[in-house]
Amino acid sequence: MLDEGMSIKSSIAGVNITLLSQIFDERGGVLHMMRSDAPEFVGFGECYFSEIFPGAIKAWKLHLKQTQNLAVPIGRIRLVIFDNRCSSSTRGTILSIELGRPDAYFRVQIPPGLLYGFCTIGPTSALIVNCTDLPHEKGESELRGLNDPEIPYTWLSL
Amino acid sequence: MLDEGMSIKSSIAGVNITLLSQIFDERGGVLHMMRSDAPEFVGFGECYFSEIFPGAIKAWKLHLKQTQNLAVPIGRIRLVIFDNRCSSSTRGTILSIELGRPDAYFRVQIPPGLLYGFCTIGPTSALIVNCTDLPHEKGESELRGLNDPEIPYTWLSL
Repeated sequence: MLDEGMSIKSSIAGVNITLLSQIFDERGGVLHMMRSDAPEFVGFGECYFSEIFPGAIKAWKLHLKQTQNLAVPIGRIRLVIFDNRCSSSTRGTILSIELGRPDAYFRVQIPPGLLYGFCTIGPTSALIVNCTDLPHEKGESELRGLNDPEIPYTWLSL
Repeated sequence: MLDEGMSIKSSIAGVNITLLSQIFDERGGVLHMMRSDAPEFVGFGECYFSEIFPGAIKAWKLHLKQTQNLAVPIGRIRLVIFDNRCSSSTRGTILSIELGRPDAYFRVQIPPGLLYGFCTIGPTSALIVNCTDLPHEKGESELRGLNDPEIPYTWLSL
């Protein structure tokens, strides 16, 4: 059994996967996301949502300075992270993880320098929340094509 | 027409209602919520969600120290705020506002000392996000019953 705040082992250095609490209430539950006293908290810059429609893929993106903290309160996604950092001990690794309630309500922390993307799983839209450490800044992120030949992953829209 | 970041006049002193951006994308949009450089930002303590099922009511709550920043990315709610603060210029006022996309994607900032609650509108669950200035602390909030005689508002589950 997993406990709140428990970390799940990640195959990419610097990626932290943390189990978040879901507190039952017969009127609708409370879902934790981020606290300023969490061990993984590195600052607050912005909170925003990315919605993703069924069958859609949003990939690839890389941030130069900003740390991402993602969780999925609505729907289900596959999050894929690729480590292409020159000096990383896990360079070349792909991490693929499903996120969604109730069994996979994790917060995934992605440090700058990693390529990532996501797609929906199943027939419904998903809502991804992101609490970043720095507010959005133009030119701070890079986009790559879905089929970038440098990235050893093939997206399948389900 | 309303512009991003535009403030809507509030009938209760200290309550700020701000229009949030919704950025269109054919794969699913991006929804702003809070930035650390927003004029209304007073610090980051916690980000969490409150889900509310159709027909449910969550009321009343009052925080002694914590400021709430609420928005509704999924579903639709009626948020009701009652000002019972002794020294408030708007003491006795009820503020009732619908929140939900696409027409009412507002961030509502509720300072400490105000009573508030919400119910769903329509047949679907809603998801409320809250970015508070202080992390949750036991004993920092007070609950009142749905039909508290001191509060001049009657909840109707729709």
